[in-house]
Amino acid sequence: MRYEPEITTTAYERGFSKMHRRKVLGLAGAGAAGVAAAGAGALALTGRDTSPTPASSADAGGAIAFYGARQAGIVTPAQDRLHFCAFDVITDDKAALLDMLQDWTAAAARMTQGRDAGTFGAVGGSMEAPPDDTGEALGLPASGLTLTIGFGPTLFRNAQGRDRFGIAAKRPAALADLPNFPRDTLDPAISGGDIGVQACAHDPQVAVHAIRNLARIGMGKVSVRWSQLGFGRTSSTSRSQATPRNLFGFKDGTRNLKAEDTALLDDHLWVQPGDGPDWMTGGSYLVTRKIRMLIETWDRSSLAEQQTIIGRDKGEGAPLTGGLEHDEPDFAARDGEGTPVIAMDSHLRLAHPDQNGGGRLLRRGYNFVDGSDGLGRLDAGLFFMAYQRDPRKQFVPVQNRLAKQDALNEYIRHVSSGLFACPPGLQAADDHWGRSLFA
Amino acid sequence: MRYEPEITTTAYERGFSKMHRRKVLGLAGAGAAGVAAAGAGALALTGRDTSPTPASSADAGGAIAFYGARQAGIVTPAQDRLHFCAFDVITDDKAALLDMLQDWTAAAARMTQGRDAGTFGAVGGSMEAPPDDTGEALGLPASGLTLTIGFGPTLFRNAQGRDRFGIAAKRPAALADLPNFPRDTLDPAISGGDIGVQACAHDPQVAVHAIRNLARIGMGKVSVRWSQLGFGRTSSTSRSQATPRNLFGFKDGTRNLKAEDTALLDDHLWVQPGDGPDWMTGGSYLVTRKIRMLIETWDRSSLAEQQTIIGRDKGEGAPLTGGLEHDEPDFAARDGEGTPVIAMDSHLRLAHPDQNGGGRLLRRGYNFVDGSDGLGRLDAGLFFMAYQRDPRKQFVPVQNRLAKQDALNEYIRHVSSGLFACPPGLQAADDHWGRSLFA
Repeated sequence: MRYEPEITTTAYERGFSKMHRRKVLGLAGAGAAGVAAAGAGALALTGRDTSPTPASSADAGGAIAFYGARQAGIVTPAQDRLHFCAFDVITDDKAALLDMLQDWTAAAARMTQGRDAGTFGAVGGSMEAPPDDTGEALGLPASGLTLTIGFGPTLFRNAQGRDRFGIAAKRPAALADLPNFPRDTLDPAISGGDIGVQACAHDPQVAVHAIRNLARIGMGKVSVRWSQLGFGRTSSTSRSQATPRNLFGFKDGTRNLKAEDTALLDDHLWVQPGDGPDWMTGGSYLVTRKIRMLIETWDRSSLAEQQTIIGRDKGEGAPLTGGLEHDEPDFAARDGEGTPVIAMDSHLRLAHPDQNGGGRLLRRGYNFVDGSDGLGRLDAGLFFMAYQRDPRKQFVPVQNRLAKQDALNEYIRHVSSGLFACPPGLQAADDHWGRSLFA
Repeated sequence: MRYEPEITTTAYERGFSKMHRRKVLGLAGAGAAGVAAAGAGALALTGRDTSPTPASSADAGGAIAFYGARQAGIVTPAQDRLHFCAFDVITDDKAALLDMLQDWTAAAARMTQGRDAGTFGAVGGSMEAPPDDTGEALGLPASGLTLTIGFGPTLFRNAQGRDRFGIAAKRPAALADLPNFPRDTLDPAISGGDIGVQACAHDPQVAVHAIRNLARIGMGKVSVRWSQLGFGRTSSTSRSQATPRNLFGFKDGTRNLKAEDTALLDDHLWVQPGDGPDWMTGGSYLVTRKIRMLIETWDRSSLAEQQTIIGRDKGEGAPLTGGLEHDEPDFAARDGEGTPVIAMDSHLRLAHPDQNGGGRLLRRGYNFVDGSDGLGRLDAGLFFMAYQRDPRKQFVPVQNRLAKQDALNEYIRHVSSGLFACPPGLQAADDHWGRSLFA
């Protein structure tokens, strides 16, 4: 374990303590007058500090436990903001990659508890070395930060067919490359990735800070392949949350799997013993799809057309067969002219598990606006994320059906795709993100 | 004034009223069972509803007054999130543009008070017409939304030299095109614009909703030229706010003009009588600069180098000559070897008004991350926004000095630039954003 020195209080620390917010540990006097105060002894690095901090600590400002049987950030009530990052591993050195994953774990364990990324923070340690935290989250609370890691198919065998790290045999069958779906217009530059990290928090500065520090720690071992910010969650993962709206203006994720559905979660979300390699038991598979919405076209369509396409009314979010949001749709209902009230090509019907072999997902998507597209339109849409026990039986058949028939297809384009195997949680402070896969 | 019909309460309205949040006015039954309930009489549009809503209304959920001597969103305590949009006017029809500005004003007056963009909302009015609100902010409070409008130089004379709207004579001298600054690497596609709208709110979904609905209302008259999301304010505009940090990890805007500095605001922020054309008296000029930060390079530089470049320490944000954040720097101080403690090319020295002819700005910038750049790096930085009385005397000389000498230049690139004349506020419900300029 890394030694955390006692440091004399300086004017700089007093400045922070006045904030009563993010704990700045190991803060050495670092101003013009305080440089000499940082004794060299304080800088001896003897290991990694991964000591768990109580999740309910008042100082931690809404911290969510990092250690547990499951990774946080899956059934955790969806936070308001997202920064997702897909990394490519740019070293072939397995020991270097493992070392980085160990460093990442230590930093994640700290940052999720509202602490800085490294023992000496942004303003401690040596003046002659880069700070080991980038500093932009100093003074901010933990803000519900979760960091969730997953491994992509290319980590097991890269685009050139090479098993760089000797783990091809450990690749789960469920981590099969996604097929090409009808209408896909994927940009390879913003798809895939060897490692995916989902940072969710109530403050985007905290989510961005976490991803940025992982990128910093991984310098020379990983590079950022693509990254996506999301600003409004589009699903609830707990019954304590109201259903939010996506950029089509409709409630999204009404029928989402929720944390409280424990029996359903074993069936549909968590990888069970015997499903595949042991290292994934208790984990889950994440599919990401960046779905550009042609919102200007949508905004010109009538309310009737919008509701017919979705299969729900826009206000309440109830099925067009009536009732309230959470009432069951009546797929057999027909109007006076014999037309199905919920259209055959409506999104509700095609995505509904009863119409779809029972496949359910835990969705955790976010809205995005990436500026404009150079053609006078907002570059906006849904960054879809869904966790599941086996994509081959869940996302793939549902998406095949939607891609072929969904009336919504006129208004959307899938532009990016990702697939990641997210192992179970870490339960001991000396465990790390790479151990079970690489052991 | 637009007639607001009494509507029978439906199941859909009851769904909303349970939320106790965004007021959905003019909500007509819109579900499968309720279509017939929206009487045709209710749809007669007789004018625009711009009736001021009390800013302190509990229903309005943190609403900021839209009407007043100044536009909101300038000295208003900086909200947490930004969506800025620059529009190009794509019609040459002055009446159509004026009509749109009137419609925008009505929608802005409503949205800033937590109401939908149009009288009949997202789920009211005719089923056969597009909704007159896009719906994604239904159920959300006003969230401190402000909408601030400004007019760019090209509105007065476009790139082809044409005065399309007969207003070239009303162009203020202070709205002079910005010069080319040393090291500028501007992308014209994300610079300039005929009209700029700054949407600030505590919830990005609310800010995005506002811009998106203005774009929708302006269809055929304006198109989105560029748009930028920001996620963490980088300046305080009120003494009630702590100084936030930018993505270099340093406190930014310590010496910003603040709302409480009323005498200074007349000198440096608000256009005074006699400064130029009457329509701008009481207004302010906005300069926007998208500043890409090379954060990976920055993150590799030592703490000493970072502090020397900025001229402040990273923890407290105090000048390197000591003290606390708000203490004055001692630019004359030298260390034992005769070297200035605050370097001659430090950002603090070069940007300081005492060293800079007294020019001060009201900064209102935001951090941004726009994904990655395809080269393994985050596409991140500062979206700088500064309001001022006369850019020729304030932003231009300061930026010329910084662009030539600032040690920070190694770590930043200016990639976009905008300049907008923001008129004073509207004080009567029958006034609108185009009247004073186009009258």
